Amino acid sequence: METFYILIINILFSIFAFISTYNIIPRLKDMFVSANLYGKDLNKKSENKIPEAFGVVSGCTFLITMFVLIPIIFGRHILQNDTSLFPHSEFIEMLAALLSICCMLLLGFSDDVLNLRWRHKLLLPTVASLPLLVVYYINFNSTTIIVPKPFRDFLGVSINLGLLYYVYMGMLAVFCTNAINILAGINGLETGQSLVIAISILIFNSIELSGDCAQAHLFSLHFIIPFIAVTFALLKYNWYPSEVFVGDTYCYFAGMTFAVIGILGHFSKTMLLFFIPQIFNFLYSTPQLFHFINCPRHRIPRLDKYGTLSPSYAECNKVNISIIGRMCLKLFSYFKIIHIEEKSDGNIKCNNLTLINLCLILIGPTNEKTLTIILLGIQAVCSMFAFIIRYPLASLFYEV
Amino acid sequence: METFYILIINILFSIFAFISTYNIIPRLKDMFVSANLYGKDLNKKSENKIPEAFGVVSGCTFLITMFVLIPIIFGRHILQNDTSLFPHSEFIEMLAALLSICCMLLLGFSDDVLNLRWRHKLLLPTVASLPLLVVYYINFNSTTIIVPKPFRDFLGVSINLGLLYYVYMGMLAVFCTNAINILAGINGLETGQSLVIAISILIFNSIELSGDCAQAHLFSLHFIIPFIAVTFALLKYNWYPSEVFVGDTYCYFAGMTFAVIGILGHFSKTMLLFFIPQIFNFLYSTPQLFHFINCPRHRIPRLDKYGTLSPSYAECNKVNISIIGRMCLKLFSYFKIIHIEEKSDGNIKCNNLTLINLCLILIGPTNEKTLTIILLGIQAVCSMFAFIIRYPLASLFYEV
Repeated sequence: METFYILIINILFSIFAFISTYNIIPRLKDMFVSANLYGKDLNKKSENKIPEAFGVVSGCTFLITMFVLIPIIFGRHILQNDTSLFPHSEFIEMLAALLSICCMLLLGFSDDVLNLRWRHKLLLPTVASLPLLVVYYINFNSTTIIVPKPFRDFLGVSINLGLLYYVYMGMLAVFCTNAINILAGINGLETGQSLVIAISILIFNSIELSGDCAQAHLFSLHFIIPFIAVTFALLKYNWYPSEVFVGDTYCYFAGMTFAVIGILGHFSKTMLLFFIPQIFNFLYSTPQLFHFINCPRHRIPRLDKYGTLSPSYAECNKVNISIIGRMCLKLFSYFKIIHIEEKSDGNIKCNNLTLINLCLILIGPTNEKTLTIILLGIQAVCSMFAFIIRYPLASLFYEV
Repeated sequence: METFYILIINILFSIFAFISTYNIIPRLKDMFVSANLYGKDLNKKSENKIPEAFGVVSGCTFLITMFVLIPIIFGRHILQNDTSLFPHSEFIEMLAALLSICCMLLLGFSDDVLNLRWRHKLLLPTVASLPLLVVYYINFNSTTIIVPKPFRDFLGVSINLGLLYYVYMGMLAVFCTNAINILAGINGLETGQSLVIAISILIFNSIELSGDCAQAHLFSLHFIIPFIAVTFALLKYNWYPSEVFVGDTYCYFAGMTFAVIGILGHFSKTMLLFFIPQIFNFLYSTPQLFHFINCPRHRIPRLDKYGTLSPSYAECNKVNISIIGRMCLKLFSYFKIIHIEEKSDGNIKCNNLTLINLCLILIGPTNEKTLTIILLGIQAVCSMFAFIIRYPLASLFYEV
């Protein structure tokens, strides 16, 4: 019952966070443009200055909401005079989670302002996830995974991954913070996909609230409800045609929020199921990300003369493609998920390897808004698929 | 003995943090200038672009050092398998302290980039100190203060301030974050004064390490040693003539670091003794800060034709000065700490009310480097005075 009341208060605060974010964003636009934080919308004909990095606004309202919520969430324990009964472990989790999120906000905003190098983008999330791993060690230190039934003959019922499990969690933080960032570039996609993922998590947590790990899912809910509120407010301005851009700040903020609640809520595997489009996009992008083939600065679709979006292409000399690059291109051609052309001068031209461009190849030129809706549709279908894997299908691999 | 080893490791990591910060800063200068984060040095004749907001670099190296130190500080407890013995309270303090510091870094950097309004500058530190107050409540909740001997006849031996004590701590956080920021404007002063305060804290903690509250002072040392390292590296470039400016980022970062270790190290009153010049400067500035008399955008000294610095002045119409403003001016005139002139057109001209200008009035025009050294000298003398109050004199007011 008490859980119920605290959730209601959380929802009320989140509504307040939504209203504040919704009202503050338009007032800050000029401030961001004067600070040189703006970009041009490459998929529009107009040359308007669109203020950028507005993720920092939702991030800050999220943090403030969480700070004000802390005394309420722990209110019962604070009011009872015996502090020895205080749930230190839960409080530690909350602080560590907020610390990691705050660090990523700082990193994201620095990246938007300063254009950091790739090594910073990989180093800093790793370091920022350190407190999280220490907390995991102190509070749970369960690094044993249950082996799916078909593999038990070789591997046994369970494996203790030990240190490897911590490496996995550290990499999860790095993956989540960057995965949303590379599936981006058209109006409303970053915020939209985060909203779909967040709502999927909300549904999953609500289902599991009556299960064995209720506490962990309640923890996750405390984060995801305000997150949905501030994301929704941002989406209102980021939706086609975008009045503001969210910047790396938002992508890192959203990614780290997902990572911390996946890790500390003990559902990192289910969390990854909600990231299917991002995982596909990452794998599909690897030949370009790791420079096996040429990777231009921008890989977003191009605006064609009919006002619709068409896939963008990268061109490179055949000799500059490494062996791994060629193998990837062959593999993609086999599955017909690439549009590739050999030109008369010996150069090879293929679409930029992102899920966005792949969509355009499969459905043909589309206007930007429709494309965003289709991609968010894919995200939602994948979430449904994730639930099917998580619930009916899981019984094939695990005891329920 | 173990404490000793951990402090040695802390010092080694801090040396590494110093070297890293020292090497990174020059490499990032161009990045900051391209991001429009630069200012002109108003006290120099040259028009060079000086990159600004470099506090974010020291802040980040500080955070990274702390993150890497956490597993080491808590290493003994992490390695013993019985997690029920883990010192949750200490770990909570460390996370809450880092969370507040990280928030202020984010706020400070946002301020440097976006030029926030005053209400944000007061609201955000207050909110950022909330987790700190919750931690204080859980871990100590001691809001009783011992009354100094001369007042015991009226007030009794001790008073329980209750909620008021939390208001005091919240205000301490706001005061510290802004106090350094308003005693600024000449090369090396922000970093220099922070270094003097930090070294005073280091000495105080080292003395108290053999006392009753060794744990609290050890906690403070874990923060202050890396802080001194990154500040020293920054001072190398911020010293006259400045190659980089530290920005609000550094002032907020330093202020919040002092506030958290004062609050969680239980020596907030002694901490305030190290802030005597800042407190004087704040009180002296109030007529302008609260707009009782005119306050120009910049109150830094002006460069005169001889290449030395002279006090800067504010002018305002006599009728625009509020009653409180007039009372302040009379009070300051009585103590001869203001230079005031009544002009023929009825306007009143007085020096901008900062400690820096007051210094220049008392000693006459001075070059910038000497002025910084004098102000840091005052800071150091005040620290010595603080130690005299804290040790020999305290016995007059309290039982030792």
